[in-house]
Amino acid sequence: MNPLPSGLSGPLILHEDPVSGNCYKIRLTAALLGLPLERRQYDITRGETRTPQFLADVNANGRIPVLQAGEKFLPESNASCFYLADGSALVPADRFDRADMLRWMFFEQYQHEPNIATLRFWLLVLGEANLDADRRAMLSGKRAGGEAALALMEKHLESRDWFVGNGPTLADICLFAYTHVAHEGGFDLAPLSAITAWIGRMRALPGFAAM
Amino acid sequence: MNPLPSGLSGPLILHEDPVSGNCYKIRLTAALLGLPLERRQYDITRGETRTPQFLADVNANGRIPVLQAGEKFLPESNASCFYLADGSALVPADRFDRADMLRWMFFEQYQHEPNIATLRFWLLVLGEANLDADRRAMLSGKRAGGEAALALMEKHLESRDWFVGNGPTLADICLFAYTHVAHEGGFDLAPLSAITAWIGRMRALPGFAAM
Repeated sequence: MNPLPSGLSGPLILHEDPVSGNCYKIRLTAALLGLPLERRQYDITRGETRTPQFLADVNANGRIPVLQAGEKFLPESNASCFYLADGSALVPADRFDRADMLRWMFFEQYQHEPNIATLRFWLLVLGEANLDADRRAMLSGKRAGGEAALALMEKHLESRDWFVGNGPTLADICLFAYTHVAHEGGFDLAPLSAITAWIGRMRALPGFAAM
Repeated sequence: MNPLPSGLSGPLILHEDPVSGNCYKIRLTAALLGLPLERRQYDITRGETRTPQFLADVNANGRIPVLQAGEKFLPESNASCFYLADGSALVPADRFDRADMLRWMFFEQYQHEPNIATLRFWLLVLGEANLDADRRAMLSGKRAGGEAALALMEKHLESRDWFVGNGPTLADICLFAYTHVAHEGGFDLAPLSAITAWIGRMRALPGFAAM
């Protein structure tokens, strides 16, 4: 294993489900930074993150991803990306830009992931025929919310290559995770030419790792 | 007006609705840091954040709060708090703790605010009798989600005074905003003694400003 840069505690272990875009964000961040990351896999559809042992040892919130850094455990995908990238070029040195990067990461968790990732999970993993009445009632609202999130991203990218500043940051990584597989949730990216071009720029980054 | 610390661009103007806990987070952060903050008020129930002028000049996403720093505009409440507090004692100097603070801020936007703040808005501002069928169908899910978020906070605070490290950080401020008014969304805080004690510690902070 490569030595870790100073400031990081290791070993770095990702507790994850490979189908999750939230977990992929952390793998992509590590790949772009050249950081070694062990992987421990759980199947959320089998309740493997709700066992007494998982709740006691990994995350009392019963969710993945969790990034383990030595003896410490860090839930929340975007916080885990920040831990890995803090001090690197993936986090802007400029104070306003650093906050603006977080602005897009909070947008991702509030308006993008709950709509686009949830629809993908429901349609791709659970299957539309298996959805209960409560979920069916939420389909149209989540569809509209996801489309609005993509429209905001498209408008923002029409005049720039990256979400913040002049190069890729965690904002791009965190938004990329579920955007590039949005078609699996029934979203059509073809008309969104600025997003499509940005996805191409992401894939061309040195060290890029596919989901 | 007091001069701003170096690294902040001014004047600092908060575009807000006073009833919003998300806006209050930013006022509380500024108060604890002794930063001057101008306020511009909008009524979201009248669509004042969806006008063409607001969308063009303040936030293309049609939402408040937005923190204006000189000529720049920063949406997302938790990102705005980070901009104000970056480099202060409200953001831990330790790398893991800094990410762990963000972990609780992402938790707040993902599991706490969409349940507790939304129920408060529906019951306190809109009124239960005025909710449409889609919102009524979501009441029980949001109630359960909010109770789970509060239970996780209670468990975490049973063994510590603050969410991260040994003093207050933005994690406490961002979680305090909607927790201390959770009763307005129908949540009973009385049995949650660790949360209740923490609310008392928050109110006792030097410079504390009420909502």
